[in-house]
Amino acid sequence: MTKLLLRALAGEAVWPPPVWLMRQAGRYLPEYRAVRAQAGDFVSLCTNPELATEVTLQPLRRFGMDAAILFSDILMLPWALGQDLRFKAGEGPVLSPLHGWADLERLAQRRLPQAIAPILETVGRVRAAMEGAMGDAALIGFAGGPFTVACYMVEGGGSKDFAAVRGMAFQQPVLFRRLMDLLTESTIAFLAAQIAAGVEAVMLFDSWAGILSPSLFRAHVIAPTRRIVTDLRARHPKLPVIGFPRLAGLLLGEYARDTGVQAVGLDTAADPSVARAMLADGIALQGNLDPLALLVGGAALREETAGILSAMRGRPFIFNLGHGIMPGTPPEHVAELVRMVRAA
Amino acid sequence: MTKLLLRALAGEAVWPPPVWLMRQAGRYLPEYRAVRAQAGDFVSLCTNPELATEVTLQPLRRFGMDAAILFSDILMLPWALGQDLRFKAGEGPVLSPLHGWADLERLAQRRLPQAIAPILETVGRVRAAMEGAMGDAALIGFAGGPFTVACYMVEGGGSKDFAAVRGMAFQQPVLFRRLMDLLTESTIAFLAAQIAAGVEAVMLFDSWAGILSPSLFRAHVIAPTRRIVTDLRARHPKLPVIGFPRLAGLLLGEYARDTGVQAVGLDTAADPSVARAMLADGIALQGNLDPLALLVGGAALREETAGILSAMRGRPFIFNLGHGIMPGTPPEHVAELVRMVRAA
Repeated sequence: MTKLLLRALAGEAVWPPPVWLMRQAGRYLPEYRAVRAQAGDFVSLCTNPELATEVTLQPLRRFGMDAAILFSDILMLPWALGQDLRFKAGEGPVLSPLHGWADLERLAQRRLPQAIAPILETVGRVRAAMEGAMGDAALIGFAGGPFTVACYMVEGGGSKDFAAVRGMAFQQPVLFRRLMDLLTESTIAFLAAQIAAGVEAVMLFDSWAGILSPSLFRAHVIAPTRRIVTDLRARHPKLPVIGFPRLAGLLLGEYARDTGVQAVGLDTAADPSVARAMLADGIALQGNLDPLALLVGGAALREETAGILSAMRGRPFIFNLGHGIMPGTPPEHVAELVRMVRAA
Repeated sequence: MTKLLLRALAGEAVWPPPVWLMRQAGRYLPEYRAVRAQAGDFVSLCTNPELATEVTLQPLRRFGMDAAILFSDILMLPWALGQDLRFKAGEGPVLSPLHGWADLERLAQRRLPQAIAPILETVGRVRAAMEGAMGDAALIGFAGGPFTVACYMVEGGGSKDFAAVRGMAFQQPVLFRRLMDLLTESTIAFLAAQIAAGVEAVMLFDSWAGILSPSLFRAHVIAPTRRIVTDLRARHPKLPVIGFPRLAGLLLGEYARDTGVQAVGLDTAADPSVARAMLADGIALQGNLDPLALLVGGAALREETAGILSAMRGRPFIFNLGHGIMPGTPPEHVAELVRMVRAA
């Protein structure tokens, strides 16, 4: 195994560490904006294998990243299940909110594989295109954590406090558990299909994990993640799963131990040294530069990067951000960051 | 010392624990809404000693809470320093954003004590009114954590990602440090004045502590808090300080150890058992029921409350919420919660 990312995910303290960035294919890149203008709306871009392949590969060409991540969105799963989805410029995703049993049963009847066919075709194209010049980089597939996907499905978009979805979890526990089961099963099917199509690792983005009380975190973040990891690893014993329970805070240790993930993504607020001490040695860590430090550059970028590298030396580690790259980030700052990591 | 709250803050594992709730004086109470309608705008209510005293005492009369907390707002400090402040219905606070040195120096010239006189008068009135029938309850004063106050001052209100204030911390470190020094010193003066006027404990609400990278958290949450605690305790060695670094996550232990606070408020996401194990035995814990469980009531309220009580038995502990009470909360749910805590 020569790919740095896969060696780190297998528990090897590769140094300098592999590096890639969440949302590395995105609006901060002029070449992305050019393709985006051509594609029409965001869903059309995600379901156009030719264009999705192109934007997936752009950051590898420009920066030589150690990983490509499939260009898609965590909401393509509810979309594939039949929920209305569109992306409004500057406002984020808008969905028809899921209210009760009738909405849920309608989604549960939809066959997943057919709708995701163009996404799987993108996986195959990207993997084929990476052979050769990008042969040292690995391809990561992904899905949202079931709870985070449920947040958007129930709220109908982003929210300040996610009171509707948390209220459903507290007040309609049977309905909410059925929704979580549907999402957990669909996520397993979706990730298994991505693996069959060629991804070499998968990541679960549970961006809103941190808004839950500890009891709900155990029920709706840890338990479904464990089920996903167990099922995927039973079919593919060497397939690494990266969990990203954003803002898990004090429950990060329990999450890592009880889900069985091979790697944990750290959010911006997570102290690398504390996280390192809290998680078993074999678990790889990934993260966690503040995306704003990357945007502003200069001393902030250098000092924050140096601090993370110094805390992680000797540990299985993958350099990344603590949250997605911000749209205004100058591409030169990304190039400088990659140079710094490679010089560690 | 017979007041339960002060005994818990002094490190005694009082059981059943004392109980009060963040934002216990507020819109969910019909008697509060009646006074609010009479007061005009929110700032007028905070600076009207008669009405502010009345709303401070309302939850004690109705529920027999173990503490009153001065009715005020963390933004009354920048208001007292001369920054424009108004509260827009449904939108939260609006301030004239602080941009640079000129704005800062203008605020630094303002004398604090004069503007805060009505707030201090409220403290004296509340304390006097509590003698007798409410003599077992303690009066808590408060201020915002300097970083959280800076968030609103620089952004001009709430924000989705607080990019302006974090950007200032990264890009204009000298200016930002001067702002933090001004706020730290003003906070010490403000809290010392509240103590002189009669509060028996103080709480620092650092609601946005969790949005910072670890290095900025140390510089702008831990360091100013340590300075405030050290200064107040030098003047009043027995005066307890409750720190509430919301979403501190993995840095909660370092915060408690390095600031010297006597008690730590836990946010909704913080697991009580993990927090208990992480913090030294003498430090009291306060929290952390999900306000949404209080709003929905029923099994969610009973189970979440029981879980927290069971995790905290034998520890110096004060029952509270993990965030402020929500406006739609039925007052009967609060009464039921207080009964449950008293029956622990």
